Amino acid sequence: MSQTSQIPQSIWADILRIRYQSPLIHSITNFVVMNNTANALLALGASPAMVHAPEEVEEFVSISSALVVNIGTLDANFVEGMRLAMRQAKALNKPIIFDPVGVGATTYRNRVSEELLALASPTVIRGNASEIMALAGLNAQTKGVDSLYGSEAAIDAARRLSAIWGSVVVVSGEKDYIIQGEQLATVANGHPLMTKVTGMGCTATALVGAFTAVNSDYFQAAAHAMVVTGIAGEIAAASKLAPGSLQLNFLDALYELTEGAITDRYQLTIG
Amino acid sequence: MSQTSQIPQSIWADILRIRYQSPLIHSITNFVVMNNTANALLALGASPAMVHAPEEVEEFVSISSALVVNIGTLDANFVEGMRLAMRQAKALNKPIIFDPVGVGATTYRNRVSEELLALASPTVIRGNASEIMALAGLNAQTKGVDSLYGSEAAIDAARRLSAIWGSVVVVSGEKDYIIQGEQLATVANGHPLMTKVTGMGCTATALVGAFTAVNSDYFQAAAHAMVVTGIAGEIAAASKLAPGSLQLNFLDALYELTEGAITDRYQLTIG
Amino acid sequence: MSQTSQIPQSIWADILRIRYQSPLIHSITNFVVMNNTANALLALGASPAMVHAPEEVEEFVSISSALVVNIGTLDANFVEGMRLAMRQAKALNKPIIFDPVGVGATTYRNRVSEELLALASPTVIRGNASEIMALAGLNAQTKGVDSLYGSEAAIDAARRLSAIWGSVVVVSGEKDYIIQGEQLATVANGHPLMTKVTGMGCTATALVGAFTAVNSDYFQAAAHAMVVTGIAGEIAAASKLAPGSLQLNFLDALYELTEGAITDRYQLTIG
Repeated sequence: MSQTSQIPQSIWADILRIRYQSPLIHSITNFVVMNNTANALLALGASPAMVHAPEEVEEFVSISSALVVNIGTLDANFVEGMRLAMRQAKALNKPIIFDPVGVGATTYRNRVSEELLALASPTVIRGNASEIMALAGLNAQTKGVDSLYGSEAAIDAARRLSAIWGSVVVVSGEKDYIIQGEQLATVANGHPLMTKVTGMGCTATALVGAFTAVNSDYFQAAAHAMVVTGIAGEIAAASKLAPGSLQLNFLDALYELTEGAITDRYQLTIG
Repeated sequence: MSQTSQIPQSIWADILRIRYQSPLIHSITNFVVMNNTANALLALGASPAMVHAPEEVEEFVSISSALVVNIGTLDANFVEGMRLAMRQAKALNKPIIFDPVGVGATTYRNRVSEELLALASPTVIRGNASEIMALAGLNAQTKGVDSLYGSEAAIDAARRLSAIWGSVVVVSGEKDYIIQGEQLATVANGHPLMTKVTGMGCTATALVGAFTAVNSDYFQAAAHAMVVTGIAGEIAAASKLAPGSLQLNFLDALYELTEGAITDRYQLTIG
Repeated sequence: MSQTSQIPQSIWADILRIRYQSPLIHSITNFVVMNNTANALLALGASPAMVHAPEEVEEFVSISSALVVNIGTLDANFVEGMRLAMRQAKALNKPIIFDPVGVGATTYRNRVSEELLALASPTVIRGNASEIMALAGLNAQTKGVDSLYGSEAAIDAARRLSAIWGSVVVVSGEKDYIIQGEQLATVANGHPLMTKVTGMGCTATALVGAFTAVNSDYFQAAAHAMVVTGIAGEIAAASKLAPGSLQLNFLDALYELTEGAITDRYQLTIG
């Protein structure tokens, strides 16, 4: 990819908008990653809020710039909050980012995911290969919340999912694929050690929320978020190759991101 | 402020009492910060416990030295636990610290906060300017859980709130104001990077709980907690100016606090 | 203990199995430690999943290699998930690891713990001295989630508990005792600073889950897990003696464990 590409400037422009506008990202997410994803959003420059109660999610959506819904530690009370929040976000035309953690592993996860998709088709869906395949109605094997497939195995499933719901679909893995209709982008950033820190995928999903809040080209926004997540992971892994350190250094790297680092490291190809 | 002030000795005496007595601090708090606030309490020398079930909070309050209630990730089940715990703490005359996270952002938060205040007026209320203004019945604008005002803008609201409920009211921000009736203390400790780590305000609230458990002059206890939170943040920021590092270094700094660091750094003025 | 002991090789063999098989560990645990225990399992090489909803726990147990149940932030909804998951794990003959956090502190904790034990006797029970004494029906004093006794004070209680439920019982403390029937193992690894990081006991419990998933000699598996937890804590404490650092370095140490470190440091005596 040539250094004269517009891509790094375009990514950097999104980051500057996030830092300047500090968009409020409403998250209904799982207990495991609430702290990390809030800190990742803050480090990037956004303003996170975790609000799930059915009594207030609709009102909260109305003051937010994007809604992130993640089913990691699903339960009935949260599902009710997700329903109301997604319906309201749809009505108000706000970006909805959906992370179907562990879908395919249980009937409940499948049922809830299908119901939520039908209720309010997401702007962006991000999952690993197993999750995207399961969500597309394929008989994917899962291992809890881990994928048993490389991300490339789910490209067709992602196309199908995108066609059904009109969503941008992100399959993350060693390479990330961003798909919308006929469009395909590939992100080769990231580091294998990121799989040894819980919730790095959930963090990517949260960051997609921040980018969609400032860039209405959602295909591009999703691709930018995946590049930035991957680059922050690479920088963190370069500091120390161990998972406790990676979690901390990832936040520091996100906070310290420069246009130079993006220009030097981005590996995004479109088409 | 003269170096012969009694303030640093008084703060240090509280810390020694916390380290020696290790008071049990019962917290009903939000999912985002449970781990951090538990770790901050441990690093200071207190003994944290997160217990929210209506079935057991009354019994747990009775063995605790202070109760911290934080509405960050509010839901109906937690609210019922808060009600029972606050009523019991009031009956047993134990300090209640209330953190109205995000009040003003939704009707539900406003309603729950008012109900809890009326049920059992807190010993100390800590919030940012938007939250204190909203809680005082003013039409404050909020941005999710962030304040849109400097802390000085909420001094009058804090006086009003203190007059209504008899509480010590802490408005935190670039400067922290501690108010009770006619009394005013100002804390200028802290570092702007603390706003880039989720739940530093919630951590301050938890530490107020620890100080009220060992110092029955609650105005002083609240001021001491804010100084200690601020100093630990300053020391952490001096190590590395990035938010992942700050979160870790804040805990280390709390654990390693010395009387010398407090004497050198405290910025507390009364009146 | 002689350097020709089979113990370090046996521990190392378990670790290699965990890294190779990456067993799925189903955890129904408390909000405070979900992130840490998931990260500890990942750092060791296992695959964690936190799933608590009554709607799906039975199905999830059936794809998991071990079930960890921890009552730290107990509430009715989680208890229902624990019931269904434990019954299913028992039916499928999968290891159940039970951590009775804070039992003895409230009637509710006592009642729930007794009910769960009777429903599906655990493979391994791990607690501090107060918890093990309370669970054995003794009138132990507790201080919230902390023990007021040294671990040796609970050896008789552990024997009693083991006799009643047929479980391996681990009493953790300055020394850890692993008991099953007449068998006794003692682990002297660990570092006092580990008590200043929230949930290190819960982490030990989670790691016991990983070891039972690859070693069907559950007495040995529990002992190995306590040695590994202790050694990782020692290595972490050797890096920096402060609790924020310890939490991070513990994860790094788990990830970087070598057979040499285990051979040099293990302090496990049997009988």
